Amino acid sequence: MFLASATPSDHLNILVTLSIMWVSAKLMAEVFERLKQPAVVGEILAGVLIGQSVLGWVEPTETTSTLSEIGVIFLLFTVGLETKPSSIFRVGKKAAMVAVLGVVVPFVCGYLLMKAWGSSNVESLFIGTAMVATSVGITARVLGQLGLLEEDTSRIILGAAIIDDILGLLILAVVSSVAEGRIDYFEILLTAGLAIAFTVFVAFIGAPAVTKMAPRIENLRVENSFFVFAVGLCLSLSIAAAYIGIAAIIGAFLAGMALAEATEDKTTIHKQMNGLTEFLVPFFFVSIGMQLRLDVFRDPTVLALTILVFLVAVITKLVGAGVGALSMGLRRAGQVGMGMVPRGEVGVVVAQIGFSLAVINDQLYAVVLFMAVATTLVAPPFLKILFAKEIKTRTPASGA
Amino acid sequence: MFLASATPSDHLNILVTLSIMWVSAKLMAEVFERLKQPAVVGEILAGVLIGQSVLGWVEPTETTSTLSEIGVIFLLFTVGLETKPSSIFRVGKKAAMVAVLGVVVPFVCGYLLMKAWGSSNVESLFIGTAMVATSVGITARVLGQLGLLEEDTSRIILGAAIIDDILGLLILAVVSSVAEGRIDYFEILLTAGLAIAFTVFVAFIGAPAVTKMAPRIENLRVENSFFVFAVGLCLSLSIAAAYIGIAAIIGAFLAGMALAEATEDKTTIHKQMNGLTEFLVPFFFVSIGMQLRLDVFRDPTVLALTILVFLVAVITKLVGAGVGALSMGLRRAGQVGMGMVPRGEVGVVVAQIGFSLAVINDQLYAVVLFMAVATTLVAPPFLKILFAKEIKTRTPASGA
Repeated sequence: MFLASATPSDHLNILVTLSIMWVSAKLMAEVFERLKQPAVVGEILAGVLIGQSVLGWVEPTETTSTLSEIGVIFLLFTVGLETKPSSIFRVGKKAAMVAVLGVVVPFVCGYLLMKAWGSSNVESLFIGTAMVATSVGITARVLGQLGLLEEDTSRIILGAAIIDDILGLLILAVVSSVAEGRIDYFEILLTAGLAIAFTVFVAFIGAPAVTKMAPRIENLRVENSFFVFAVGLCLSLSIAAAYIGIAAIIGAFLAGMALAEATEDKTTIHKQMNGLTEFLVPFFFVSIGMQLRLDVFRDPTVLALTILVFLVAVITKLVGAGVGALSMGLRRAGQVGMGMVPRGEVGVVVAQIGFSLAVINDQLYAVVLFMAVATTLVAPPFLKILFAKEIKTRTPASGA
Repeated sequence: MFLASATPSDHLNILVTLSIMWVSAKLMAEVFERLKQPAVVGEILAGVLIGQSVLGWVEPTETTSTLSEIGVIFLLFTVGLETKPSSIFRVGKKAAMVAVLGVVVPFVCGYLLMKAWGSSNVESLFIGTAMVATSVGITARVLGQLGLLEEDTSRIILGAAIIDDILGLLILAVVSSVAEGRIDYFEILLTAGLAIAFTVFVAFIGAPAVTKMAPRIENLRVENSFFVFAVGLCLSLSIAAAYIGIAAIIGAFLAGMALAEATEDKTTIHKQMNGLTEFLVPFFFVSIGMQLRLDVFRDPTVLALTILVFLVAVITKLVGAGVGALSMGLRRAGQVGMGMVPRGEVGVVVAQIGFSLAVINDQLYAVVLFMAVATTLVAPPFLKILFAKEIKTRTPASGA
């Protein structure tokens, strides 16, 4: 009573809001793990549950959206940490084929579907873009849990998913500029050039430089010097990427990739990052769910469009990415294609940007969110079936 | 250019603010480690540097103060994690003597000093309260770095520092109620009773219960189940403590202590918590520094009071706690007394609450902050001298 009133009660309210978000996310994660479904889907549904659609316990504020953004930055950073540039180069050619076809087919089909539905050009471009990117975090987690990370197909999926992300974010930059009504081709080319230069610079010059510098970083006096350096690099490159014109999360991903070789044998930093993301990332997933408006699905037209968009998202990615891997045989092509289906956080980020630009409305936002969540939900059981032969012949390793 | 403008630029600004806070804290921590001074002092000074007093790069917002509060909650939680209830009971009697005298002498002398200086009753009570608590985190860190955690004196210092914290926060609850002008003795007793009941319940019933439950927690399906449970317990008890009427941080500390036995052998959870606190805690220290107004020290009267308060803070703790340990001989009493001198974050929390209640003004706030920082700065070199004999006879262990 004394300190509760002594501390400004606003502070207590914020603390209560954040605790409700976090605890409900983890309770739902537990429920979904027991149902053998991805925990991520449980955390998003926790947000739906406590948000405006159902219980109305929490509302988004500056603080919750900041925590959400820091969360997704560190999520992509840790995915980068597990992605050595060399491991992408090795399967480079096949992964690039899978990535490009896995980008072009969903983008074109998504765009055409929306045009046929009667949407505007800009709306259709945004829905197409939201269908492009593969959620590499979710894919990696599912493959790791099945003990399949060492498979050739897994490496191709991971490599292609990363190229996907970069292509997707470039497309997003272009589409965003179109949405803002200033289609300055020179500026688009400049941004694309800067983005590619930034990516190439970090991957080819930054990464080896950091790997060389690693022993010196260890010699810094500050406690946990390597972790401190890693977080500092992640924050700096996130901001640099945002200033250059690409999303902050791609800067974070590249920062992680630059550190991947240097941190390969260091379990301590992985556990430290793990503690940080375990706390921060749920705010991202819950915030996503909090924004979903379930009432739009009462409209049968919207419901029909939702199902259509979902089906097109699954089929185009499966076929597009699958054709890219067809030289490996039909079964493996199916594995690769299904592995690329989850859209997860990247599809949501695209939807959020389109929403914040007022280019897509509440209803389309809900449609895209549903697509991102449902593709994430549908892939894991199919992956289990498609990889049944590989799962039988190896004892499942511990999760990624 | 595209996404930077597509993402609301507010978001980028907040990200830049947080990055400046965090990176400057760590740069100053590195500088201070090289000067063989506590990193914590460097992080607070980083806040002074980038705050209103010097560079004016950042301003406190709802988001920075929330991160600061979450930071101090997890800081006290990790201190609790390293504090087994049984380790306090073992040195209980001596530690209790040290704690009580180390609380009474600074409180009374601080109060009398301020009264003699002409301050109001409430102001004097607050300054006295700010002089009470020992920063157990800083003390433990310094002793660990010197390789002295196994010494008898170290155990007494740690035990006494913890009792100190609890006594200090109880005094704070009482003083806050006085400051709010409603000296309802029944309510004060009720709050004190509730606080003690809450503390005793968590320490004697909660801790063994959690230790027993530990294997079941491990069996939860959610990833990193033990870490997730720990964070959930920390958030829940923080909120419970705030509702009961004691500070959220004491709830966090008790949550940590309840988990101390169960997490003793678990390096993973310690590393995960370490990653979380490495990221969050600097926001607390930097926020402290950001609030300091250096210009108040231009007034020679304020400067004189600052020096006086600092000297009284050092001497009263040294003598009070020292007398409590006098049965161990003069040298050991000196070790214990000096080990209790750092006020660190707890003194600052008291000052913040007094400031937010408008009970103490800018000038007194600056005086107390200076006292908290300076006592933290002055203790480590003296501890090295007082422990010279023990340091010689043992090879320094790795840090705590």
